[in-house]
Amino acid sequence: MRRTSHSRVNCPIARSLERIGDSWALLIVRDAFFGLRRFEDFQERLGIPPTTLARRLRELVAAGILERLPYQERPVRYEYVLTRKGTDLHPVLLGLLAWGNRHYAPAGPIVEVARTSTGERVRPVTVDAATGERLRGPEFRFVPGPGASGATKAWLEERGERPFQSPR
Amino acid sequence: MRRTSHSRVNCPIARSLERIGDSWALLIVRDAFFGLRRFEDFQERLGIPPTTLARRLRELVAAGILERLPYQERPVRYEYVLTRKGTDLHPVLLGLLAWGNRHYAPAGPIVEVARTSTGERVRPVTVDAATGERLRGPEFRFVPGPGASGATKAWLEERGERPFQSPR
Repeated sequence: MRRTSHSRVNCPIARSLERIGDSWALLIVRDAFFGLRRFEDFQERLGIPPTTLARRLRELVAAGILERLPYQERPVRYEYVLTRKGTDLHPVLLGLLAWGNRHYAPAGPIVEVARTSTGERVRPVTVDAATGERLRGPEFRFVPGPGASGATKAWLEERGERPFQSPR
Repeated sequence: MRRTSHSRVNCPIARSLERIGDSWALLIVRDAFFGLRRFEDFQERLGIPPTTLARRLRELVAAGILERLPYQERPVRYEYVLTRKGTDLHPVLLGLLAWGNRHYAPAGPIVEVARTSTGERVRPVTVDAATGERLRGPEFRFVPGPGASGATKAWLEERGERPFQSPR
């Protein structure tokens, strides 16, 4: 988290990774999605050294991904809950889930997404919200947005003509 | 990459993070998507210490994410190209891109996806491939797949009734 400084870099991926470019951070967020809230529960589930857990939780709170809320007075005890910014990480975790299922689960997918009402398995894919078209192939490309610096614009101009490579 | 060992854990996210749970690894993959192939080009673009870059490239090749190919004889020089397993990481990078654009780009998105033919901006969303329905809310949940261990099944049974929280 503090090991490298990417936040000055004009790239949204680098800026994201500065906050969550650490396995423990993302595993804490994963378990927060599954409803864990308390220090002891994260520690037990993750088998993480307590000092590392304390540091990661502090960093996730500082980044606005988790909120620290008192759940008990005398003595005050705190729990950690995902903020909206935290729940916005759902697609990242879903991407990691799909990749792990595909490449590191020789006995078949470990965790899948299902429709609650029918139990049917669901295959998540990324599409254009407006048209529903799958995002892949040369019809899609990366372009500079309003926040792009001159250097980013030049980089994308030089490199951005490459087809958007989406796997499936 | 070697710092923690999550691969024995019966979780696809943990197994993914063991290979790419490192900022530099994902930034190398990002730039490989943009067509960088050579050691010097990664080094220049990333400002990464050469020993770190060499180690990360070795690990990414060992993980089957990059392939190391000779591009010159006498002396032999190598370049690094994404494998299919590497391009399968596209949705993860897209998720990080969206999150960074949303939360760390005060002047507006830095890099966006556009339709090549019209230049129109595209908003990527995750849907069920079969129905096109957005994956969010209580209609979707995580369930054990064929590769789930007994412990994973128990964990999901205990926790899996939670609604699938997808942000937008």
